[in-house]
Amino acid sequence: MPDNLINLADFDADTCESYRKKKDIEEELEYQRDRLGNLQQRLYAENQRSLLIVLQAMDTGGKDGTIKQVFSGVNPQGCRVWSFKHPSLEESNHDFLWRYHWRTPQKGMITIFNRSHYEDVLIVRVKKLVEDEVWQKRYHIINDFEQMLTLSNITIIKFFLHISKAEQKLRLQSRLENPDKLWKFSINDVNERKLWDEYQSAYQDAINNCSTDYAPWYVVPSKKKWYRNLVIARALADTLAAMNPQYPQASTDITNIKIPD
Amino acid sequence: MPDNLINLADFDADTCESYRKKKDIEEELEYQRDRLGNLQQRLYAENQRSLLIVLQAMDTGGKDGTIKQVFSGVNPQGCRVWSFKHPSLEESNHDFLWRYHWRTPQKGMITIFNRSHYEDVLIVRVKKLVEDEVWQKRYHIINDFEQMLTLSNITIIKFFLHISKAEQKLRLQSRLENPDKLWKFSINDVNERKLWDEYQSAYQDAINNCSTDYAPWYVVPSKKKWYRNLVIARALADTLAAMNPQYPQASTDITNIKIPD
Repeated sequence: MPDNLINLADFDADTCESYRKKKDIEEELEYQRDRLGNLQQRLYAENQRSLLIVLQAMDTGGKDGTIKQVFSGVNPQGCRVWSFKHPSLEESNHDFLWRYHWRTPQKGMITIFNRSHYEDVLIVRVKKLVEDEVWQKRYHIINDFEQMLTLSNITIIKFFLHISKAEQKLRLQSRLENPDKLWKFSINDVNERKLWDEYQSAYQDAINNCSTDYAPWYVVPSKKKWYRNLVIARALADTLAAMNPQYPQASTDITNIKIPD
Repeated sequence: MPDNLINLADFDADTCESYRKKKDIEEELEYQRDRLGNLQQRLYAENQRSLLIVLQAMDTGGKDGTIKQVFSGVNPQGCRVWSFKHPSLEESNHDFLWRYHWRTPQKGMITIFNRSHYEDVLIVRVKKLVEDEVWQKRYHIINDFEQMLTLSNITIIKFFLHISKAEQKLRLQSRLENPDKLWKFSINDVNERKLWDEYQSAYQDAINNCSTDYAPWYVVPSKKKWYRNLVIARALADTLAAMNPQYPQASTDITNIKIPD
Protein backbone atom coordinates (compact mmCIF):
# COMPACT_ATOMS: atom_id res chain seq x y z
CA MET A 1 0.00 0.00 0.00
CA PRO A 2 1.35 3.46 -0.84
CA ASP A 3 2.35 5.92 1.87
CA ASN A 4 0.36 8.73 0.34
CA LEU A 5 -3.30 7.91 0.26
CA ILE A 6 -5.36 9.80 -2.26
CA ASN A 7 -8.68 11.48 -1.84
CA LEU A 8 -10.58 11.31 -5.12
CA ALA A 9 -12.45 14.50 -4.31
CA ASP A 10 -9.11 16.35 -4.45
CA PHE A 11 -8.66 15.43 -8.10
CA ASP A 12 -9.99 17.88 -10.65
CA ALA A 13 -11.71 15.73 -13.27
CA ASP A 14 -12.09 18.70 -15.59
CA THR A 15 -8.50 19.89 -15.87
CA CYS A 16 -6.54 19.79 -19.10
CA GLU A 17 -3.32 21.38 -17.85
CA SER A 18 -2.49 24.48 -19.82
CA TYR A 19 -4.06 23.17 -23.03
CA ARG A 20 -7.08 25.07 -24.27
CA LYS A 21 -8.57 23.01 -27.03
CA LYS A 22 -8.30 19.78 -28.96
CA LYS A 23 -6.23 21.42 -31.66
CA ASP A 24 -3.46 22.18 -29.16
CA ILE A 25 -2.72 18.51 -28.64
CA GLU A 26 -3.49 16.94 -32.00
CA GLU A 27 0.10 16.88 -33.09
CA GLU A 28 1.36 15.32 -29.89
CA LEU A 29 -1.46 12.77 -29.84
CA GLU A 30 -0.54 11.70 -33.34
CA TYR A 31 3.09 11.45 -32.27
CA GLN A 32 2.23 9.34 -29.21
CA ARG A 33 -0.04 7.06 -31.21
CA ASP A 34 2.75 6.51 -33.73
CA ARG A 35 5.18 5.67 -30.94
CA LEU A 36 2.62 3.29 -29.48
CA GLY A 37 2.16 1.53 -32.83
CA ASN A 38 5.88 1.20 -33.44
CA LEU A 39 6.67 -0.02 -29.95
CA GLN A 40 3.83 -2.52 -30.14
CA GLN A 41 5.33 -3.97 -33.27
CA ARG A 42 8.63 -4.48 -31.47
CA LEU A 43 6.88 -5.97 -28.43
CA TYR A 44 5.08 -8.42 -30.70
CA ALA A 45 8.24 -9.36 -32.58
CA GLU A 46 10.25 -9.78 -29.38
CA ASN A 47 7.60 -12.17 -28.05
CA GLN A 48 8.98 -12.21 -24.50
CA ARG A 49 6.95 -9.72 -22.50
CA SER A 50 3.50 -8.22 -22.57
CA LEU A 51 1.41 -5.29 -21.41
CA LEU A 52 -1.86 -5.46 -19.50
CA ILE A 53 -3.94 -2.28 -19.45
CA VAL A 54 -6.80 -1.98 -16.98
CA LEU A 55 -9.51 0.57 -17.78
CA GLN A 56 -12.03 1.47 -15.11
CA ALA A 57 -14.49 4.32 -14.90
CA MET A 58 -17.93 5.31 -13.72
CA ASP A 59 -20.62 4.75 -16.38
CA THR A 60 -20.06 7.10 -19.36
CA GLY A 61 -16.50 7.68 -18.13
CA GLY A 62 -15.11 6.93 -21.58
CA LYS A 63 -13.67 3.43 -21.55
CA ASP A 64 -15.00 2.51 -25.00
CA GLY A 65 -14.04 5.88 -26.45
CA THR A 66 -10.53 5.59 -25.07
CA ILE A 67 -10.03 2.22 -26.72
CA LYS A 68 -11.36 3.47 -30.04
CA GLN A 69 -9.41 6.70 -30.05
CA VAL A 70 -6.11 5.62 -28.52
CA PHE A 71 -5.84 2.16 -30.06
CA SER A 72 -7.24 2.60 -33.52
CA GLY A 73 -4.00 2.51 -35.47
CA VAL A 74 -2.55 -0.28 -33.41
CA ASN A 75 -2.21 -3.61 -35.20
CA PRO A 76 -5.16 -5.72 -33.97
CA GLN A 77 -3.01 -8.83 -34.30
CA GLY A 78 -0.99 -7.70 -31.29
CA CYS A 79 -3.83 -6.19 -29.26
CA ARG A 80 -6.73 -7.94 -27.60
CA VAL A 81 -9.61 -6.27 -25.80
CA TRP A 82 -11.71 -8.08 -23.23
CA SER A 83 -14.86 -6.41 -21.94
CA PHE A 84 -16.16 -7.79 -18.68
CA LYS A 85 -19.85 -7.54 -18.03
CA HIS A 86 -22.14 -9.44 -15.72
CA PRO A 87 -20.45 -12.80 -15.09
CA SER A 88 -21.92 -15.88 -16.72
CA LEU A 89 -23.25 -18.69 -14.56
CA GLU A 90 -20.07 -20.65 -15.25
CA GLU A 91 -17.90 -17.70 -14.27
CA SER A 92 -19.88 -17.16 -11.07
CA ASN A 93 -19.21 -20.75 -10.16
CA HIS A 94 -15.48 -20.07 -9.94
CA ASP A 95 -13.26 -17.88 -7.78
CA PHE A 96 -13.49 -14.20 -8.72
CA LEU A 97 -10.15 -14.11 -10.57
CA TRP A 98 -10.89 -17.10 -12.78
CA ARG A 99 -12.50 -15.27 -15.69
CA TYR A 100 -9.75 -12.64 -15.75
CA HIS A 101 -6.79 -14.92 -15.37
CA TRP A 102 -7.03 -16.87 -18.61
CA ARG A 103 -7.49 -13.63 -20.51
CA THR A 104 -4.21 -12.08 -19.34
CA PRO A 105 -1.88 -11.37 -22.26
CA GLN A 106 0.36 -13.98 -23.80
CA LYS A 107 3.92 -13.02 -24.69
CA GLY A 108 4.17 -10.21 -27.20
CA MET A 109 0.63 -8.97 -26.71
CA ILE A 110 -1.08 -5.86 -25.43
CA THR A 111 -4.28 -6.79 -23.64
CA ILE A 112 -6.89 -4.27 -22.56
CA PHE A 113 -9.33 -5.09 -19.79
CA ASN A 114 -12.43 -2.96 -20.31
CA ARG A 115 -13.58 -3.30 -16.72
CA SER A 116 -11.59 -5.87 -14.79
CA HIS A 117 -11.07 -7.80 -11.58
CA TYR A 118 -11.55 -4.44 -9.84
CA GLU A 119 -15.29 -4.79 -10.38
CA ASP A 120 -15.10 -7.38 -7.64
CA VAL A 121 -14.26 -4.64 -5.11
CA LEU A 122 -16.45 -2.01 -6.80
CA ILE A 123 -19.92 -3.03 -7.97
CA VAL A 124 -19.71 -6.16 -5.84
CA ARG A 125 -19.09 -4.01 -2.76
CA VAL A 126 -21.54 -1.23 -3.57
CA LYS A 127 -24.37 -3.60 -4.46
CA LYS A 128 -23.49 -5.83 -1.49
CA LEU A 129 -23.20 -8.94 -3.65
CA VAL A 130 -20.92 -10.55 -1.08
CA GLU A 131 -20.27 -10.07 2.66
CA ASP A 132 -17.93 -7.24 3.66
CA GLU A 133 -15.20 -9.57 4.83
CA VAL A 134 -15.14 -11.20 1.40
CA TRP A 135 -14.45 -8.12 -0.70
CA GLN A 136 -12.19 -6.64 1.97
CA LYS A 137 -9.79 -9.56 1.57
CA ARG A 138 -9.66 -9.05 -2.18
CA TYR A 139 -7.33 -6.04 -2.17
CA HIS A 140 -4.61 -8.28 -0.87
CA ILE A 141 -5.51 -11.07 -3.26
CA ILE A 142 -5.48 -8.64 -6.20
CA ASN A 143 -2.06 -7.30 -5.23
CA ASP A 144 -0.67 -10.81 -5.05
CA PHE A 145 -2.26 -11.72 -8.37
CA GLU A 146 -0.83 -8.66 -10.08
CA GLN A 147 2.59 -9.27 -8.59
CA MET A 148 2.54 -12.83 -9.85
CA LEU A 149 1.68 -11.59 -13.36
CA THR A 150 4.47 -9.03 -13.15
CA LEU A 151 6.93 -11.78 -12.33
CA SER A 152 5.85 -13.45 -15.58
CA ASN A 153 6.99 -10.37 -17.51
CA ILE A 154 3.58 -8.78 -17.78
CA THR A 155 3.75 -5.04 -17.25
CA ILE A 156 0.53 -3.74 -15.70
CA ILE A 157 -0.83 -0.21 -15.96
CA LYS A 158 -4.22 0.85 -14.61
CA PHE A 159 -6.28 3.89 -15.54
CA PHE A 160 -9.24 5.34 -13.70
CA LEU A 161 -11.03 7.69 -16.06
CA HIS A 162 -12.19 10.37 -13.69
CA ILE A 163 -15.30 12.44 -14.47
CA SER A 164 -17.50 14.58 -12.24
CA LYS A 165 -21.05 13.75 -11.34
CA ALA A 166 -22.24 16.76 -13.33
CA GLU A 167 -20.36 15.56 -16.41
CA GLN A 168 -21.98 12.14 -16.14
CA LYS A 169 -25.38 13.76 -16.21
CA LEU A 170 -24.49 15.59 -19.42
CA ARG A 171 -23.23 12.42 -21.01
CA LEU A 172 -26.27 10.33 -20.08
CA GLN A 173 -28.46 13.10 -21.43
CA SER A 174 -26.49 13.14 -24.65
CA ARG A 175 -26.96 9.40 -25.11
CA LEU A 176 -30.69 9.87 -24.77
CA GLU A 177 -30.78 12.64 -27.32
CA ASN A 178 -28.47 11.25 -30.00
CA PRO A 179 -29.85 8.35 -32.11
CA ASP A 180 -26.32 7.07 -32.78
CA LYS A 181 -25.56 6.96 -29.06
CA LEU A 182 -28.90 5.68 -27.81
CA TRP A 183 -27.75 2.05 -28.04
CA LYS A 184 -25.27 2.83 -25.26
CA PHE A 185 -27.97 4.10 -22.93
CA SER A 186 -29.17 1.76 -20.22
CA ILE A 187 -31.81 2.58 -17.66
CA ASN A 188 -29.54 0.75 -15.27
CA ASP A 189 -27.01 3.59 -15.57
CA VAL A 190 -29.59 5.94 -14.10
CA ASN A 191 -30.04 3.67 -11.11
CA GLU A 192 -26.31 3.24 -10.64
CA ARG A 193 -25.91 7.01 -10.69
CA LYS A 194 -27.85 7.21 -7.44
CA LEU A 195 -24.99 5.30 -5.85
CA TRP A 196 -22.39 7.82 -7.07
CA ASP A 197 -20.87 8.50 -3.65
CA GLU A 198 -20.66 4.84 -2.74
CA TYR A 199 -18.86 4.12 -6.01
CA GLN A 200 -16.44 7.00 -5.49
CA SER A 201 -15.57 5.63 -2.04
CA ALA A 202 -15.11 2.16 -3.46
CA TYR A 203 -12.85 3.51 -6.23
CA GLN A 204 -10.83 5.53 -3.78
CA ASP A 205 -10.26 2.49 -1.58
CA ALA A 206 -9.37 0.29 -4.54
CA ILE A 207 -6.86 2.82 -5.80
CA ASN A 208 -5.36 3.37 -2.35
CA ASN A 209 -5.10 -0.32 -1.58
CA CYS A 210 -3.92 -1.54 -4.97
CA SER A 211 -1.62 1.12 -6.35
CA THR A 212 1.72 -0.61 -6.19
CA ASP A 213 5.17 -0.01 -7.60
CA TYR A 214 4.64 -2.91 -9.98
CA ALA A 215 1.05 -2.07 -10.98
CA PRO A 216 0.32 1.64 -10.57
CA TRP A 217 -3.05 3.34 -10.83
CA TYR A 218 -3.37 6.54 -12.85
CA VAL A 219 -6.25 8.88 -12.13
CA VAL A 220 -6.94 10.51 -15.51
CA PRO A 221 -8.93 13.76 -15.71
CA SER A 222 -11.45 12.74 -18.34
CA LYS A 223 -13.91 15.52 -18.94
CA LYS A 224 -11.98 16.64 -21.99
CA LYS A 225 -11.80 13.49 -24.06
CA TRP A 226 -8.90 14.72 -26.17
CA TYR A 227 -6.87 15.43 -23.04
CA ARG A 228 -7.72 12.01 -21.59
CA ASN A 229 -6.58 10.38 -24.84
CA LEU A 230 -3.31 12.28 -24.77
CA VAL A 231 -2.57 11.40 -21.14
CA ILE A 232 -3.21 7.72 -21.75
CA ALA A 233 -1.41 7.48 -25.08
CA ARG A 234 1.60 9.21 -23.56
CA ALA A 235 1.65 7.01 -20.46
CA LEU A 236 1.41 3.87 -22.57
CA ALA A 237 4.07 4.92 -25.05
CA ASP A 238 6.39 5.89 -22.18
CA THR A 239 5.76 2.55 -20.47
CA LEU A 240 6.54 0.61 -23.64
CA ALA A 241 9.57 2.78 -24.36
CA ALA A 242 10.92 2.00 -20.89
CA MET A 243 10.41 -1.72 -21.60
CA ASN A 244 12.40 -1.14 -24.78
CA PRO A 245 11.42 -4.30 -26.68
CA GLN A 246 13.85 -5.54 -29.30
CA TYR A 247 13.56 -7.41 -32.58
CA PRO A 248 14.95 -10.88 -31.86
CA GLN A 249 18.19 -12.09 -33.32
CA ALA A 250 18.24 -15.01 -35.72
CA SER A 251 17.69 -18.27 -33.88
CA THR A 252 19.86 -20.21 -36.31
CA ASP A 253 23.05 -19.39 -38.15
CA ILE A 254 21.77 -17.79 -41.32
CA THR A 255 25.07 -17.02 -43.04
CA ASN A 256 24.96 -20.04 -45.33
CA ILE A 257 21.26 -20.29 -46.00
CA LYS A 258 20.32 -20.38 -49.65
CA ILE A 259 16.69 -20.14 -50.65
CA PRO A 260 16.13 -22.85 -53.28
CA ASP A 261 14.35 -21.99 -56.56
CA MET B 1 -19.23 -27.72 -54.35
CA PRO B 2 -19.18 -25.11 -57.13
CA ASP B 3 -19.85 -26.08 -60.73
CA ASN B 4 -16.79 -24.29 -62.00
CA LEU B 5 -13.66 -25.77 -60.54
CA ILE B 6 -10.66 -23.53 -60.48
CA ASN B 7 -7.10 -24.25 -61.44
CA LEU B 8 -4.77 -22.17 -59.29
CA ALA B 9 -2.15 -22.12 -62.01
CA ASP B 10 -4.57 -20.14 -64.17
CA PHE B 11 -4.60 -17.29 -61.65
CA ASP B 12 -2.05 -14.54 -62.19
CA ALA B 13 -0.67 -13.80 -58.72
CA ASP B 14 1.13 -10.72 -59.99
CA THR B 15 -1.75 -8.80 -61.55
CA CYS B 16 -2.97 -5.48 -60.26
CA GLU B 17 -5.67 -4.81 -62.86
CA SER B 18 -5.03 -1.55 -64.64
CA TYR B 19 -3.37 0.09 -61.64
CA ARG B 20 0.28 0.94 -62.03
CA LYS B 21 1.54 1.90 -58.63
CA LYS B 22 0.60 2.26 -54.98
CA LYS B 23 -0.22 5.91 -55.43
CA ASP B 24 -3.03 5.03 -57.87
CA ILE B 25 -5.03 3.30 -55.17
CA GLU B 26 -4.17 5.23 -52.00
CA GLU B 27 -7.30 7.31 -52.10
CA GLU B 28 -9.61 4.37 -52.65
CA LEU B 29 -7.86 2.30 -49.98
CA GLU B 30 -8.38 5.12 -47.49
CA TYR B 31 -12.02 5.31 -48.52
CA GLN B 32 -12.53 1.55 -48.11
CA ARG B 33 -10.78 1.53 -44.74
CA ASP B 34 -13.05 4.34 -43.57
CA ARG B 35 -16.11 2.44 -44.73
CA LEU B 36 -14.83 -0.64 -42.95
CA GLY B 37 -14.33 1.30 -39.70
CA ASN B 38 -17.75 2.89 -39.84
CA LEU B 39 -19.57 -0.31 -40.72
CA GLN B 40 -17.74 -2.15 -37.95
CA GLN B 41 -18.98 0.39 -35.45
CA ARG B 42 -22.56 -0.25 -36.56
CA LEU B 43 -22.03 -4.03 -36.50
CA TYR B 44 -20.73 -3.74 -32.94
CA ALA B 45 -23.58 -1.50 -31.82
CA GLU B 46 -26.20 -3.73 -33.47
CA ASN B 47 -24.82 -6.73 -31.58
CA GLN B 48 -26.81 -9.29 -33.59
CA ARG B 49 -24.50 -10.60 -36.31
CA SER B 50 -20.80 -11.04 -36.85
CA LEU B 51 -18.13 -11.48 -39.50
CA LEU B 52 -15.54 -14.24 -39.67
CA ILE B 53 -12.58 -13.63 -41.96
CA VAL B 54 -10.33 -16.54 -42.87
CA LEU B 55 -6.84 -15.69 -44.12
CA GLN B 56 -4.74 -18.38 -45.71
CA ALA B 57 -1.57 -18.17 -47.74
CA MET B 58 1.71 -19.89 -48.49
CA ASP B 59 4.53 -18.75 -46.16
CA THR B 60 5.38 -15.07 -46.78
CA GLY B 61 2.04 -14.71 -48.56
CA GLY B 62 1.20 -11.64 -46.48
CA LYS B 63 -1.30 -12.67 -43.83
CA ASP B 64 0.30 -10.58 -41.07
CA GLY B 65 0.81 -7.61 -43.38
CA THR B 66 -2.80 -7.74 -44.52
CA ILE B 67 -4.05 -7.60 -40.95
CA LYS B 68 -1.76 -4.72 -40.08
CA GLN B 69 -2.49 -2.69 -43.19
CA VAL B 70 -6.19 -3.35 -43.70
CA PHE B 71 -7.29 -3.42 -40.05
CA SER B 72 -5.18 -0.76 -38.43
CA GLY B 73 -7.82 1.89 -38.02
CA VAL B 74 -10.47 -0.56 -36.97
CA ASN B 75 -11.53 -0.32 -33.33
CA PRO B 76 -9.76 -3.22 -31.59
CA GLN B 77 -12.69 -3.57 -29.20
CA GLY B 78 -14.77 -4.94 -32.07
CA CYS B 79 -12.06 -6.96 -33.79
CA ARG B 80 -10.29 -10.07 -32.58
CA VAL B 81 -7.43 -11.83 -34.32
CA TRP B 82 -6.59 -15.47 -33.66
CA SER B 83 -3.38 -16.90 -35.09
CA PHE B 84 -3.30 -20.65 -35.29
CA LYS B 85 0.07 -22.31 -35.10
CA HIS B 86 1.12 -25.82 -34.21
CA PRO B 87 -1.70 -27.21 -32.02
CA SER B 88 -1.03 -27.61 -28.32
CA LEU B 89 -1.15 -31.05 -26.77
CA GLU B 90 -4.61 -30.27 -25.41
CA GLU B 91 -5.82 -29.12 -28.82
CA SER B 92 -4.45 -32.26 -30.46
CA ASN B 93 -6.44 -34.32 -28.03
CA HIS B 94 -9.70 -32.99 -29.45
CA ASP B 95 -11.44 -33.15 -32.80
CA PHE B 96 -9.83 -30.87 -35.39
CA LEU B 97 -12.53 -28.16 -35.21
CA TRP B 98 -12.39 -27.82 -31.44
CA ARG B 99 -9.74 -25.12 -31.22
CA TYR B 100 -11.39 -23.04 -33.94
CA HIS B 101 -14.96 -23.35 -32.80
CA TRP B 102 -14.73 -21.52 -29.47
CA ARG B 103 -12.85 -18.70 -31.17
CA THR B 104 -15.60 -17.94 -33.69
CA PRO B 105 -16.95 -14.40 -33.30
CA GLN B 106 -19.57 -13.47 -30.77
CA LYS B 107 -22.36 -11.14 -31.83
CA GLY B 108 -21.16 -7.75 -32.98
CA MET B 109 -17.58 -8.82 -33.58
CA ILE B 110 -15.23 -9.15 -36.51
CA THR B 111 -12.93 -12.11 -35.99
CA ILE B 112 -9.92 -12.83 -38.16
CA PHE B 113 -8.48 -16.31 -38.36
CA ASN B 114 -4.81 -16.00 -39.31
CA ARG B 115 -4.57 -19.57 -40.57
CA SER B 116 -7.62 -21.61 -39.76
CA HIS B 117 -9.38 -24.95 -39.85
CA TYR B 118 -8.18 -25.17 -43.45
CA GLU B 119 -4.72 -26.10 -42.15
CA ASP B 120 -6.30 -29.46 -41.38
CA VAL B 121 -6.67 -30.15 -45.10
CA LEU B 122 -3.43 -28.34 -46.06
CA ILE B 123 -0.35 -28.94 -43.93
CA VAL B 124 -2.00 -31.98 -42.38
CA ARG B 125 -2.46 -33.45 -45.85
CA VAL B 126 0.88 -32.42 -47.31
CA LYS B 127 2.88 -33.61 -44.33
CA LYS B 128 0.76 -36.76 -44.10
CA LEU B 129 -0.12 -36.16 -40.45
CA VAL B 130 -3.26 -38.26 -40.81
CA GLU B 131 -4.43 -40.98 -43.21
CA ASP B 132 -5.85 -39.84 -46.57
CA GLU B 133 -9.38 -40.91 -45.72
CA VAL B 134 -9.30 -38.72 -42.64
CA TRP B 135 -8.50 -35.41 -44.34
CA GLN B 136 -10.62 -36.27 -47.36
CA LYS B 137 -13.72 -36.39 -45.17
CA ARG B 138 -12.94 -32.97 -43.76
CA TYR B 139 -14.11 -30.92 -46.76
CA HIS B 140 -17.61 -32.05 -46.07
CA ILE B 141 -17.22 -31.52 -42.33
CA ILE B 142 -15.88 -28.00 -42.92
CA ASN B 143 -18.78 -27.12 -45.21
CA ASP B 144 -21.26 -28.31 -42.61
CA PHE B 145 -19.44 -26.40 -39.86
CA GLU B 146 -19.40 -23.20 -41.88
CA GLN B 147 -23.06 -23.58 -42.78
CA MET B 148 -23.95 -24.04 -39.13
CA LEU B 149 -22.06 -20.83 -38.26
CA THR B 150 -23.82 -19.00 -41.06
CA LEU B 151 -27.16 -20.06 -39.64
CA SER B 152 -26.09 -18.36 -36.40
CA ASN B 153 -25.73 -15.06 -38.23
CA ILE B 154 -22.00 -15.30 -38.78
CA THR B 155 -21.02 -14.10 -42.25
CA ILE B 156 -17.92 -15.93 -43.48
CA ILE B 157 -15.45 -14.69 -46.05
CA LYS B 158 -12.24 -16.49 -46.96
CA PHE B 159 -9.15 -15.11 -48.66
CA PHE B 160 -6.32 -17.04 -50.23
CA LEU B 161 -3.42 -14.62 -50.68
CA HIS B 162 -1.91 -15.89 -53.90
CA ILE B 163 1.78 -15.38 -54.66
CA SER B 164 4.08 -17.09 -57.13
CA LYS B 165 6.91 -19.36 -56.18
CA ALA B 166 9.40 -16.81 -57.49
CA GLU B 167 7.87 -14.11 -55.32
CA GLN B 168 8.17 -16.32 -52.25
CA LYS B 169 11.87 -16.68 -52.92
CA LEU B 170 12.30 -12.91 -53.03
CA ARG B 171 10.38 -12.49 -49.80
CA LEU B 172 12.30 -15.15 -47.91
CA GLN B 173 15.52 -13.58 -49.15
CA SER B 174 14.36 -10.19 -47.96
CA ARG B 175 13.63 -11.53 -44.47
CA LEU B 176 17.17 -12.86 -44.31
CA GLU B 177 18.67 -9.56 -45.37
CA ASN B 178 16.59 -7.14 -43.32
CA PRO B 179 17.33 -7.04 -39.55
CA ASP B 180 13.78 -5.85 -38.80
CA LYS B 181 12.32 -8.78 -40.72
CA LEU B 182 14.73 -11.47 -39.63
CA TRP B 183 12.52 -12.43 -36.68
CA LYS B 184 9.94 -13.64 -39.18
CA PHE B 185 12.40 -15.96 -40.90
CA SER B 186 12.22 -19.62 -40.03
CA ILE B 187 14.42 -22.32 -41.49
CA ASN B 188 11.24 -24.35 -41.57
CA ASP B 189 9.90 -22.06 -44.32
CA VAL B 190 12.78 -23.17 -46.55
CA ASN B 191 11.85 -26.80 -46.03
CA GLU B 192 8.16 -26.15 -46.63
CA ARG B 193 9.06 -24.37 -49.86
CA LYS B 194 10.29 -27.68 -51.27
CA LEU B 195 6.68 -28.87 -51.02
CA TRP B 196 5.36 -25.93 -53.05
CA ASP B 197 3.53 -28.02 -55.64
CA GLU B 198 1.93 -30.28 -53.05
CA TYR B 199 0.67 -27.21 -51.16
CA GLN B 200 -0.72 -25.63 -54.32
CA SER B 201 -2.65 -28.83 -55.04
CA ALA B 202 -3.96 -28.94 -51.51
CA TYR B 203 -5.06 -25.29 -51.70
CA GLN B 204 -6.72 -25.84 -55.02
CA ASP B 205 -8.69 -28.79 -53.67
CA ALA B 206 -9.66 -26.93 -50.52
CA ILE B 207 -10.89 -23.96 -52.53
CA ASN B 208 -12.77 -26.15 -54.99
CA ASN B 209 -14.37 -28.27 -52.32
CA CYS B 210 -15.20 -25.53 -49.85
CA SER B 211 -16.17 -22.48 -51.84
CA THR B 212 -19.87 -22.26 -51.10
CA ASP B 213 -22.57 -19.66 -51.59
CA TYR B 214 -22.58 -19.05 -47.86
CA ALA B 215 -18.80 -19.03 -47.36
CA PRO B 216 -16.98 -18.06 -50.55
CA TRP B 217 -13.25 -18.23 -51.19
CA TYR B 218 -11.50 -15.29 -52.81
CA VAL B 219 -8.20 -15.87 -54.58
CA VAL B 220 -6.37 -12.56 -54.14
CA PRO B 221 -3.42 -11.66 -56.39
CA SER B 222 -0.91 -10.73 -53.71
CA LYS B 223 2.41 -9.84 -55.28
CA LYS B 224 1.60 -6.15 -55.08
CA LYS B 225 0.78 -5.68 -51.43
CA TRP B 226 -1.08 -2.42 -51.99
CA TYR B 227 -3.31 -4.10 -54.55
CA ARG B 228 -3.95 -7.03 -52.23
CA ASN B 229 -4.91 -4.60 -49.45
CA LEU B 230 -7.32 -2.79 -51.72
CA VAL B 231 -9.01 -5.98 -52.95
CA ILE B 232 -9.51 -7.23 -49.40
CA ALA B 233 -10.60 -3.91 -47.88
CA ARG B 234 -13.09 -3.48 -50.71
CA ALA B 235 -14.48 -7.02 -50.40
CA LEU B 236 -14.89 -6.63 -46.65
CA ALA B 237 -16.50 -3.21 -46.81
CA ASP B 238 -18.88 -4.46 -49.54
CA THR B 239 -19.75 -7.50 -47.45
CA LEU B 240 -20.50 -5.40 -44.38
CA ALA B 241 -22.42 -2.87 -46.44
CA ALA B 242 -24.61 -5.69 -47.76
CA MET B 243 -25.23 -6.83 -44.18
CA ASN B 244 -26.25 -3.23 -43.47
CA PRO B 245 -26.02 -3.29 -39.67
CA GLN B 246 -28.16 -0.79 -37.77
CA TYR B 247 -27.87 1.07 -34.51
CA PRO B 248 -30.43 -0.54 -32.21
CA GLN B 249 -33.54 1.25 -31.11
CA ALA B 250 -34.07 2.05 -27.44
CA SER B 251 -35.00 -1.07 -25.52
CA THR B 252 -37.18 0.89 -23.09
CA ASP B 253 -39.49 3.83 -23.49
CA ILE B 254 -37.15 6.78 -23.03
CA THR B 255 -39.59 9.65 -23.46
CA ASN B 256 -40.05 10.26 -19.75
CA ILE B 257 -36.59 9.50 -18.48
CA LYS B 258 -35.02 12.24 -16.39
CA ILE B 259 -31.39 11.97 -15.39
CA PRO B 260 -31.27 12.86 -11.67
CA ASP B 261 -28.71 15.40 -10.42
